[in-house]
Amino acid sequence: MTKPYELYYWPNIPGRGEYVRLALEAAGVKYRDVGRKKGFAAIAEVSGAFGEAGASKHAVLPFAPPVLKAGDLVIFQTAAICAWIGERHGLVPRKKQSRQFALGLALTIEDFVREVHDTHHPIAAYQYYEDQKKEAKRRAKDFRENRLGTFLTYFETVIARNAKSDVWLIGAKPSYCDLSLFQTVRGLTYAFPKAMARVSKDSPHVLANAEAVAQIPRIKTYLKSKRRLPFNQEGIFRHYPELDDS
Amino acid sequence: MTKPYELYYWPNIPGRGEYVRLALEAAGVKYRDVGRKKGFAAIAEVSGAFGEAGASKHAVLPFAPPVLKAGDLVIFQTAAICAWIGERHGLVPRKKQSRQFALGLALTIEDFVREVHDTHHPIAAYQYYEDQKKEAKRRAKDFRENRLGTFLTYFETVIARNAKSDVWLIGAKPSYCDLSLFQTVRGLTYAFPKAMARVSKDSPHVLANAEAVAQIPRIKTYLKSKRRLPFNQEGIFRHYPELDDS
Repeated sequence: MTKPYELYYWPNIPGRGEYVRLALEAAGVKYRDVGRKKGFAAIAEVSGAFGEAGASKHAVLPFAPPVLKAGDLVIFQTAAICAWIGERHGLVPRKKQSRQFALGLALTIEDFVREVHDTHHPIAAYQYYEDQKKEAKRRAKDFRENRLGTFLTYFETVIARNAKSDVWLIGAKPSYCDLSLFQTVRGLTYAFPKAMARVSKDSPHVLANAEAVAQIPRIKTYLKSKRRLPFNQEGIFRHYPELDDS
Repeated sequence: MTKPYELYYWPNIPGRGEYVRLALEAAGVKYRDVGRKKGFAAIAEVSGAFGEAGASKHAVLPFAPPVLKAGDLVIFQTAAICAWIGERHGLVPRKKQSRQFALGLALTIEDFVREVHDTHHPIAAYQYYEDQKKEAKRRAKDFRENRLGTFLTYFETVIARNAKSDVWLIGAKPSYCDLSLFQTVRGLTYAFPKAMARVSKDSPHVLANAEAVAQIPRIKTYLKSKRRLPFNQEGIFRHYPELDDS
């Protein structure tokens, strides 16, 4: 692989692109962050970037960013990208069962993230928050009372069950799943500081996992760099006090 | 592999289990449908079925059904299961790019399916439909007007772009993605007959794809069998006339 990887993602939000960035950074590979370099328009037309109709028998049409280009290979869907990076760059154990478990975990983290997103957009993803605020309050209440604990307890149990480590989800070393769980825990702490303070007491392994990820040397360097985008009010994780515990 | 595969899924709904069943049926492999044989309780405790804490270094904890057991291998998350079956049983081309594309398509179909589910449960998955009917009407309207066409147009374009076939999503033969798209199109036609009649006119390839899947000999036999569960009012795809076009 001589060409650096190319990440295609919106320049203005951490969003799902950040899950891919964390995997790339932990892998220690070079990559071009196309959206941040070329701006919004380059990403809005991302599906046009990989070949026209019938142009190639390998023409791939991604549904939405993030997209990773690795040489000629085009990969889309966040968990699929992270799994590919992880398997290629030593961020997941080699055993078949471990890789399947990791993919299952990554997809479950995506389910979790999707439910976080829908707390502020329960009616229509492309309408304003203000136009669905009443419904958002109901949905966020259910999320805080039922879903948040269910997901955290699940990951807590996975770490507690891991015979090879007290800190990581799977195997003896950090995997791409740990990176994704870290981003999710940080995002939840930004979006729902009160609910997280209440619920995460019962998930000490999950909190320790996030701390350990932040201390991985490459991740530690990355988090201090300008490449790391802070959470904001346009991403998946948004802080609306009225959606948090009162 | 001497032992037949085991599918763990709720016995009372087609749900996400049906996506796995279609892949198993098209693959022509033997499988035990554990939920339909042993009932609801066997599935409610599915996470207990694969080993206790620390019992094995390969102990896998699935988040939720469906789960596939293939010998000692435990796989969860619908798209991951379908991809595994597809790659093992010739239901996806061999090329690396094709397999990544297929996984991306399968995960996009799951995103689509999740949005269908949320049309009738926009507030809380475990509360009654009646208690979120008003919100469901708003969400379903947005789905019918914006999301349904977006997804169908995407899959329409993928089929139209496929240089190897006019019918299939990827490559020259049916893949596990075609099976999943078929189930989704049938489910949508059950749930939103009016909206589908309106929107699918613009997606002739998607409709032809579903017809072609129904004619695959093993699928044709399966659809006539008792193994095939009909859509009902407890699954992902539910027919509430008030959520369809008026």
